[in-house]
Amino acid sequence: MKVIRSIFQMQEERIEIKKKNLSIGFVPTMGYLHEGHLSLIKKSKEENDITIVSIFVNPTQFGPSEDFNKYPRDEKRDLQKCEENSCDIVFLPKKNEMYPQYFFTFVEVEKLGEKLCGKSRPTHFRGVTTVLTKLFHIIRPDRAYFGQKDAQQLLIVKKMVEDLNMEIEIIGCPIIREEDGLAISSRNVYLKENERKDAILLYQSLKQAEELIKKGEKDPLRIKEEMKKIILSGKNNQIDYIEFVDTKTLDPVSKIKGETLIAIAVKTGTTRLIDNIIVKE
Amino acid sequence: MKVIRSIFQMQEERIEIKKKNLSIGFVPTMGYLHEGHLSLIKKSKEENDITIVSIFVNPTQFGPSEDFNKYPRDEKRDLQKCEENSCDIVFLPKKNEMYPQYFFTFVEVEKLGEKLCGKSRPTHFRGVTTVLTKLFHIIRPDRAYFGQKDAQQLLIVKKMVEDLNMEIEIIGCPIIREEDGLAISSRNVYLKENERKDAILLYQSLKQAEELIKKGEKDPLRIKEEMKKIILSGKNNQIDYIEFVDTKTLDPVSKIKGETLIAIAVKTGTTRLIDNIIVKE
Repeated sequence: MKVIRSIFQMQEERIEIKKKNLSIGFVPTMGYLHEGHLSLIKKSKEENDITIVSIFVNPTQFGPSEDFNKYPRDEKRDLQKCEENSCDIVFLPKKNEMYPQYFFTFVEVEKLGEKLCGKSRPTHFRGVTTVLTKLFHIIRPDRAYFGQKDAQQLLIVKKMVEDLNMEIEIIGCPIIREEDGLAISSRNVYLKENERKDAILLYQSLKQAEELIKKGEKDPLRIKEEMKKIILSGKNNQIDYIEFVDTKTLDPVSKIKGETLIAIAVKTGTTRLIDNIIVKE
Repeated sequence: MKVIRSIFQMQEERIEIKKKNLSIGFVPTMGYLHEGHLSLIKKSKEENDITIVSIFVNPTQFGPSEDFNKYPRDEKRDLQKCEENSCDIVFLPKKNEMYPQYFFTFVEVEKLGEKLCGKSRPTHFRGVTTVLTKLFHIIRPDRAYFGQKDAQQLLIVKKMVEDLNMEIEIIGCPIIREEDGLAISSRNVYLKENERKDAILLYQSLKQAEELIKKGEKDPLRIKEEMKKIILSGKNNQIDYIEFVDTKTLDPVSKIKGETLIAIAVKTGTTRLIDNIIVKE
């Protein structure tokens, strides 16, 4: 496994791979790798000749009052996991090389980036699409892998790739959960013991919504009420949003019809958690 | 010469060119080709195996009250000029394919795009960088050619390429002028006879600035006064700006020192003209 830390070296390496006509699968991450990331790596290895994982805690996707500095990092363990999972290349660019002084250029997907998490994190998705554009240009992957957990991010990245004519296949992979249902996230390490219990309620509320819809309920408002009750039964939970939206446009739906994305964001203690489920009528 | 009108066909063609390991020079234009464009094509032909010219009047770089609809177009003459100048491919994408319904993604170079022309045309450069990102992804050129006449555009495109790690060499080419000094532009066709005479004063004011600096004048304010007098001696001229700026940051300079860009924008009648000159201390 090659560990590459400079942009130039990564470009050189990519040129060599392309010369050999090998396909590249790319898994962009912010490190602190967990089962969710590993499922993306596994999928990439199945579908490509070469799998490249990037580890970069991207400052432009954090708001000024967010957790950039305390975001969990463990490079040694991450590299070990990549090695164990037979990654070909791990790319760890430096912050100052990715964003030198006088960095002015941003890529933004309007409309889609303003909804759901965009309301409380107004510059978040702009940071995500900007860093991904840079990484896509440096690595030029054939396919890139993203978790369905960040459903809005997945949709925005697909839209960016389509709008800007990037020839990259964006592949969404299922949410990986703990045994009790909590969606796996690097931020879960922030949760204190009593908060960890309340965090389970996010998934339970989504399961309850699914159940109600199976029984024939079609009114998002009524389902939302039930979900609220479940989530707020945890004393540490504070709801940011519970939204029923179209899976393509992220516009709110007034009736469950066809495919609907139910997306939630909850502050459990000081930790912001997100989860979602796609339901079919 | 191949004339290509679909994005997919252009991508296929580019894949074939790359398979043969040929270099691509790219000249993006809005058509109505003139000597300025032809000088870019000539340069591209000197430096690359294949030269691709795009002709696309890009709606996103026009403001709502600007001249998108009346912008001069003459496809037949343009294709003839490309043929005469031995272009290999002319790419004429369709508006609806470049910007389908629900197009949401924009590329923006902050700071640099807000100065000079950005003040009176706030979304102009965002449109330019967005369409160029799309065209760069579709064509994947090794080099792309731009006129120094659009000095701010050239600087912004260079910055975008650097910030987003696009592996494209951006090459600026000298301003091409009429015999009387008027910088050649597609918009010159808008000028009525009496306006055409006043339009010459832009270049004359720049030459006067250069003269004064040669004689030792270092104060932009004093030079600006002289330039104003010259430009406003034309009754049809209305000054948008006369600016003395750093050639890298576009920040105003308070003293002529090293390289300075003198950039001007003037409305001659209803036609907005720009011109510039780089002076050295």
